[in-house]
Amino acid sequence: MKKYMEVALELARYGKEIGEVPVGALVVKEGVIIAKAHNEVEITNNPVAHAEMLAIQRAAIYLKNWRLHDCTLYVTLEPCIMCMGAILNARITKLVYGSGDNSKGAVESQTDLFRSPLFQNIEIYPGILEEESKKLLKNFFYNLRE
Amino acid sequence: MKKYMEVALELARYGKEIGEVPVGALVVKEGVIIAKAHNEVEITNNPVAHAEMLAIQRAAIYLKNWRLHDCTLYVTLEPCIMCMGAILNARITKLVYGSGDNSKGAVESQTDLFRSPLFQNIEIYPGILEEESKKLLKNFFYNLRE
Repeated sequence: MKKYMEVALELARYGKEIGEVPVGALVVKEGVIIAKAHNEVEITNNPVAHAEMLAIQRAAIYLKNWRLHDCTLYVTLEPCIMCMGAILNARITKLVYGSGDNSKGAVESQTDLFRSPLFQNIEIYPGILEEESKKLLKNFFYNLRE
Repeated sequence: MKKYMEVALELARYGKEIGEVPVGALVVKEGVIIAKAHNEVEITNNPVAHAEMLAIQRAAIYLKNWRLHDCTLYVTLEPCIMCMGAILNARITKLVYGSGDNSKGAVESQTDLFRSPLFQNIEIYPGILEEESKKLLKNFFYNLRE
């Protein structure tokens, strides 16, 4: 899992360089990365352009199927409500994430969607390379306040 | 409210004609419809192309701003988790919807996100032209089973 999360962290770092909240995401199927994304909310002025949403849509384009069966989503930050809903709608099987998000995290921080019966078929692995993701976000928001 | 919901129902009917789950949505700002959409999941093979998601993104393009302050989202069906998250992320002020959705509705049917503190700044009006929306969905799913 760490190998893929390293790639997601690289995407998050690139997002940071262009002024986005540093979050990176990938979709992996049968050991192959089929989609990559970082946040694009600011550069595209799109409120739904979170890394997870873009990775999910790119994976659907790659598979020519909106049902992402047997796919794992890796993301450096705990998903928000919208992204958790997209994970559900796209039939993502496994979710792996880095740091928790106290302000918007919808797996367990702000809402506990993972306890909802709707999510009972998803495996969730939190805390993978958590510190690296936290440090990246902390530096980003610290620099914004400068 | 009914006037705008009639337009959303027209969009839903058009979606049905092209094989989509019949849901229509609009974004209204200061009495003007600034974005319209119906579901496009099947025709675009995109798991996140719900009517609400598309209407929100089109409104952001129109306003050249991802923050949809003072905007109302009209949608014929109770939004799912993903769409409720997008409503929150886009800073939608008011949500008006038609029928409830027992299988995926995230306002109050399957999860009660409207009770979450994250949603305390949104006004929610359910049940507007509820019967028309229900009838449309019922016919659609009935025909699918034929």
